[in-house]
Amino acid sequence: MNVAVFGTGVVGRTIAAQLSGLGHRVTMGTRNPEKTLAKKEPDRSGNPSMQEWLSQYNGIQLKDYAKSVTDAEVVFNCTLGSASVEALRLAGPSINGKILVDVANPLDFANGMTPTLSPGNTDSLGELLQRTFPEVRVVKTLNTMTAAIMVNPSLIDGDHNVFISGNDASAKGTVKELLRSFGWKEQTILDLGDITTARGTEQLLPIWLRLWGKLQTPYFNFNIVRKATS
Amino acid sequence: MNVAVFGTGVVGRTIAAQLSGLGHRVTMGTRNPEKTLAKKEPDRSGNPSMQEWLSQYNGIQLKDYAKSVTDAEVVFNCTLGSASVEALRLAGPSINGKILVDVANPLDFANGMTPTLSPGNTDSLGELLQRTFPEVRVVKTLNTMTAAIMVNPSLIDGDHNVFISGNDASAKGTVKELLRSFGWKEQTILDLGDITTARGTEQLLPIWLRLWGKLQTPYFNFNIVRKATS
Repeated sequence: MNVAVFGTGVVGRTIAAQLSGLGHRVTMGTRNPEKTLAKKEPDRSGNPSMQEWLSQYNGIQLKDYAKSVTDAEVVFNCTLGSASVEALRLAGPSINGKILVDVANPLDFANGMTPTLSPGNTDSLGELLQRTFPEVRVVKTLNTMTAAIMVNPSLIDGDHNVFISGNDASAKGTVKELLRSFGWKEQTILDLGDITTARGTEQLLPIWLRLWGKLQTPYFNFNIVRKATS
Repeated sequence: MNVAVFGTGVVGRTIAAQLSGLGHRVTMGTRNPEKTLAKKEPDRSGNPSMQEWLSQYNGIQLKDYAKSVTDAEVVFNCTLGSASVEALRLAGPSINGKILVDVANPLDFANGMTPTLSPGNTDSLGELLQRTFPEVRVVKTLNTMTAAIMVNPSLIDGDHNVFISGNDASAKGTVKELLRSFGWKEQTILDLGDITTARGTEQLLPIWLRLWGKLQTPYFNFNIVRKATS
């Protein structure tokens, strides 16, 4: 499958590497590829420069947003939540009709140490993207865990969940297949319903961020456990 | 221990019955006990009238908010989130210095089918109560599950979590003891930190409500699972 991955941070790189390893043709999208490739130093978190990172993944290309989506069937949005609308705008009309897997969270860092969610709780980034780009088939998923777990659920002992929200059943079917190819077991994929249910998963971030602080590790996930069968 | 329980709905009744069964002296608090006792019919959800319910629990008394807290060491807030500030105001100054176990959620039913949270995501009911009543020792807990599970965690197979938030370590210690007496295992009680972390647990409600719809049962809970030990 031809897949575009928007965003060159840890989430975008992790998803792109996994997809490439699974044999998909991956093109990463960014605002200004020349500028991104010109940076030679690791970023502030110590991640290698994009040029250095790409040198380990021969098959992965880096293009501007519009060029990256031209041949893509599926587009992963791994940009910052605050940059997502602009990234899709820059992608132009060729993104219409395509599946957008929205992995981003609308974190707002303006309110002190722990970020809040910019849409409040009467909206979500998933819905905002679907409203703003009605021809795009938005599927929200994977936004409730750290990147390494997204593509390798066996990092966590036992069962745990990935949530999925979207209006288009066929788009969700394609995304569920991709999730299964990442190692997600059928019974751990919880389809919550239409894109408004993205409010539920994006609002897991406030406790996710606090659990990260409490547990001193991002390697955890939510498991929904049910009533004992009697 | 003398315990007051504010609220005569299912949550208040469930907590009060459990505390009474454990040998505590329980007084339930409501705005107007005479009016509450005068209702002879089941409520719209089919729950028995308060008078009928109380007849099954000889030890439990019903008083107004102020009288219910006079001798209490611990007060459970099981009122509607929208009524909680007023309930505490009516309790008067004798609630000062006491532990308030805040089980309520600030659900706002004005925005359509699925309620939203009235404090948005830059505040929480737990924080609002602590700010408004600075002499009360607010501990937020149990607000992320259905009432039956609060007092009987073994309803769910395997481990699952209860969260706790509050500024007063000694108050949290007393509440943890009560949680253990309800059957919560030590390692399942996750102390997230100060009362601002109540934002995290209250914001579990948007996904909790959607999971309730998806799973067609309120008998489920969140379990935080961690990285496989290697």
